[in-house]
Amino acid sequence: MDRVRIGLVGFGTVGGSFYRLLTANAGEFERRLGVAVDVPWLAVRDASRPRNVAPGTRVVQGWQAILDDNDLPIVVELAGGAEAPLPLVREALSRGKHVITANKALLSAHGRELLALAAENGVELKFEAAVCGGIPIIKVLSESLLGNRVRSIVGIVNGTTNYILTRMTEERLSFAEALAEAQKKGFAEADPTLDVSGGDAAQKIGLLGSLAFGCWIDPACVLTEGITTVEQKDIEFCQASGFQIKLVAQARLMDGVPLVTVFPALVPLDHPLAGVRNEFNGVLVDSDYLGPSMYEGRGAGGNPTASSVASDLGDLLKGILSKQVRRPFAGALPLAAAFPQGRMRSRYYFHFVTANRPGIWALVTGVCAETGINIESVHQKWEDKSKPSDLYVLVDEAEESQVRLAFSRITAAEGIRPASHYLRIVPSPAGGR
Amino acid sequence: MDRVRIGLVGFGTVGGSFYRLLTANAGEFERRLGVAVDVPWLAVRDASRPRNVAPGTRVVQGWQAILDDNDLPIVVELAGGAEAPLPLVREALSRGKHVITANKALLSAHGRELLALAAENGVELKFEAAVCGGIPIIKVLSESLLGNRVRSIVGIVNGTTNYILTRMTEERLSFAEALAEAQKKGFAEADPTLDVSGGDAAQKIGLLGSLAFGCWIDPACVLTEGITTVEQKDIEFCQASGFQIKLVAQARLMDGVPLVTVFPALVPLDHPLAGVRNEFNGVLVDSDYLGPSMYEGRGAGGNPTASSVASDLGDLLKGILSKQVRRPFAGALPLAAAFPQGRMRSRYYFHFVTANRPGIWALVTGVCAETGINIESVHQKWEDKSKPSDLYVLVDEAEESQVRLAFSRITAAEGIRPASHYLRIVPSPAGGR
Repeated sequence: MDRVRIGLVGFGTVGGSFYRLLTANAGEFERRLGVAVDVPWLAVRDASRPRNVAPGTRVVQGWQAILDDNDLPIVVELAGGAEAPLPLVREALSRGKHVITANKALLSAHGRELLALAAENGVELKFEAAVCGGIPIIKVLSESLLGNRVRSIVGIVNGTTNYILTRMTEERLSFAEALAEAQKKGFAEADPTLDVSGGDAAQKIGLLGSLAFGCWIDPACVLTEGITTVEQKDIEFCQASGFQIKLVAQARLMDGVPLVTVFPALVPLDHPLAGVRNEFNGVLVDSDYLGPSMYEGRGAGGNPTASSVASDLGDLLKGILSKQVRRPFAGALPLAAAFPQGRMRSRYYFHFVTANRPGIWALVTGVCAETGINIESVHQKWEDKSKPSDLYVLVDEAEESQVRLAFSRITAAEGIRPASHYLRIVPSPAGGR
Repeated sequence: MDRVRIGLVGFGTVGGSFYRLLTANAGEFERRLGVAVDVPWLAVRDASRPRNVAPGTRVVQGWQAILDDNDLPIVVELAGGAEAPLPLVREALSRGKHVITANKALLSAHGRELLALAAENGVELKFEAAVCGGIPIIKVLSESLLGNRVRSIVGIVNGTTNYILTRMTEERLSFAEALAEAQKKGFAEADPTLDVSGGDAAQKIGLLGSLAFGCWIDPACVLTEGITTVEQKDIEFCQASGFQIKLVAQARLMDGVPLVTVFPALVPLDHPLAGVRNEFNGVLVDSDYLGPSMYEGRGAGGNPTASSVASDLGDLLKGILSKQVRRPFAGALPLAAAFPQGRMRSRYYFHFVTANRPGIWALVTGVCAETGINIESVHQKWEDKSKPSDLYVLVDEAEESQVRLAFSRITAAEGIRPASHYLRIVPSPAGGR
């Protein structure tokens, strides 16, 4: 198997998550690309603190060892800060190393120079993780929509303010209370200014707009208003009128010229962004061939951000390995084993069409009891004694096999009509959305 | 500029849209990749019919000319049918040509063989357009989530049935009426069996599951139930209970083994799939590092599908051009011109905090009249005469500059408190979602 060595700078929330991802999911890289990734160097600010790394990784202070390693084609910069990592990134690109960064502040301040420097040196500067955490919006704009002209990007791109506004809306908290809660949960910094002022969102929408429209948008030119003026009264009134208040970042072409803005706005309840709650991000892109498309997920946090760093790493590895790359479907795949359908579990909904006579409820509830199915509720809709009744039954999670058995017993009984049927209930996704 | 020649097979809805995309958005390929794409051959079933193509494109019957052209590295198969294009795709891959296809039926029946054949010949078989039209779900699963282990995919992957169920829910149509409407609008075939039976969704979720889990899932092993049993009564009851009925396709790992299903199910209203309406598709993926992420857009139609074909073409072109490839940000970007913020337009919401005395309504409505702002509604919340009132005003689309002028005039007047402010209203996206 091919091996590629990378240098990691930074071991905070994102750096630590990414290192763990490389360890835990090494098999995914091997299976999909046929490559093993080694991390010979981890550069940190204070190398004297103990770090939980494998014996193959040397922890060093400062990044010189990484720059000087000639058998190391990729530098992953996860240290943060708009200015501190600038010399590292400049020098790495100049020496012909690819750079992956999650550093939105660095890109916002120096991206134009650094991207040009990368191009000059025939290497890549990748930054999927710098905008909207785990949402693959950079790849979507630069690859999936390659054949499209993008007309507009409308997004919720700051998780802190979205969390605050969600809590103000759903729990009637004041701004101060919601902010305090966000800080307690780690969704807001001790100094929340950059987030609540809209500045963070402006940096992100500037990068997205630059990518979509092919011209550099200076974040200082983004019309930026924060959420501190939004009061509980606004939220109550807007909700009653069919709107959610969200911090909305937009980049749109107006007569061929970009208009880029960040401000709190009323979003109609039927707008796809209205359902983006808590710390989640969502981005709605409108382009000429695809039309509207929407991308949604966790916009921050160590693991989601590490997922995007890994995506950039995968792209670079494919390029480096070029011809040897295994594509996802390379070679004959093993046939999938089939999970027994009877063992699938979910909540269920039954609709029995029944004769209108005594004994039906006892039949249904009795069979459920025999087959171990836990009833949540039973509703009967009965309009006219002379007609069949509709009996609706919602039940707790059960196995498909139990449900099939119960259903066949019930529908085999007298008084149950053939139109009876059942449906499964999809659970709300885990993860609090 | 580099030029790459491709062969196009099929000129129906998708083929025609893709050809038009190449013509209309040639500039995007040139700007982003530095390449011009030529289509020397268009293979169709009946070459005698007139086709609206550029002089550089020769319309031929049958695909032999494309196979025999040794300076043509990419074949785009948009003819459709599970069996008819099989010899073409086999032969193209065997001759070392990359193949792009939007043909889900072909892949579902022969994908395992064809993918292995592509790998043997060192070329790629790309099929972003085969699943969920314009949604970049193939790229997300194979590239963006490369460092993740996927736990589950839950999606609405068939636009026809989603349209039918949406119309049954929102307009109380019967299944037959909704189907007739879908057929009239071009969202359902004359023979709708493959869609309403769940068979189309089973082919798609089989492909997505195969990609996510790295093993081939035979669509014949997918538990498949259609929507024909769903009645208006079910929909009414479920809605009253907080659910939408959707045709849900799922692939999930159960004890490490795939369980793949398609059936109509109740989806809670707070589930992100509940908001996927009409002919739209949506796919919710849960993976270990990213957590839940959601992808939504048009799942069918000529233009959205052409957008995905173009994405595949872009990927192949990057590989073919390798070192010469211009990345999206290659070179110094031109600085963006700034659209005048004052000319931005939207609907607006004003919240004036006012003294409780006569003349306030006249002031506000008078200034709006002077500045040409069209009032939609005015609501006053007035609880206690001794306290300030809250006056909420919703107005029609206006220019930011008008609104700033009106706002400054109103807030400069006596009786208007400094806490007054305004917000912009984001429109629901165009395209009927």
